[in-house]
Amino acid sequence: MSKSVFYHAGCPVCVTAEQELIGLVGATNVSIVNIGEDKSRISEAEDLGIKSVPALVTPNGNVLHINYGASIEDVKG
Amino acid sequence: MSKSVFYHAGCPVCVTAEQELIGLVGATNVSIVNIGEDKSRISEAEDLGIKSVPALVTPNGNVLHINYGASIEDVKG
Repeated sequence: MSKSVFYHAGCPVCVTAEQELIGLVGATNVSIVNIGEDKSRISEAEDLGIKSVPALVTPNGNVLHINYGASIEDVKG
Repeated sequence: MSKSVFYHAGCPVCVTAEQELIGLVGATNVSIVNIGEDKSRISEAEDLGIKSVPALVTPNGNVLHINYGASIEDVKG
């Protein structure tokens, strides 16, 4: 995995964090996944260790939980 | 402010986040401030809206709280 992956759920906190991260890291270096829309990827996020969104998974596999938009449980709805 | 500023307090969570962020953003684009060692800068961090460390303040002035190492109150000691 050479790109970071940014998981979000469309929440306002997520949008701000996404814009800031893309500005810092560069859009070509980040894949964006909206687990609010694509619920089939929630389990993938959980397997990576994500507890809340927005979260960035780095190329090293570390999870950076950024601010707090919603828990994974909230996204499951 | 054209650089981001990364505030931390030397905690293990802080160290991991620092290494990851520097890898993503580039060391030349981030200033590092250890408010555990340099307590005179705690009030500056609070003024920027930082509630816990590690936290990254972007060039736009947005605060990204990353994971959770310690609250500012904890750092005050």
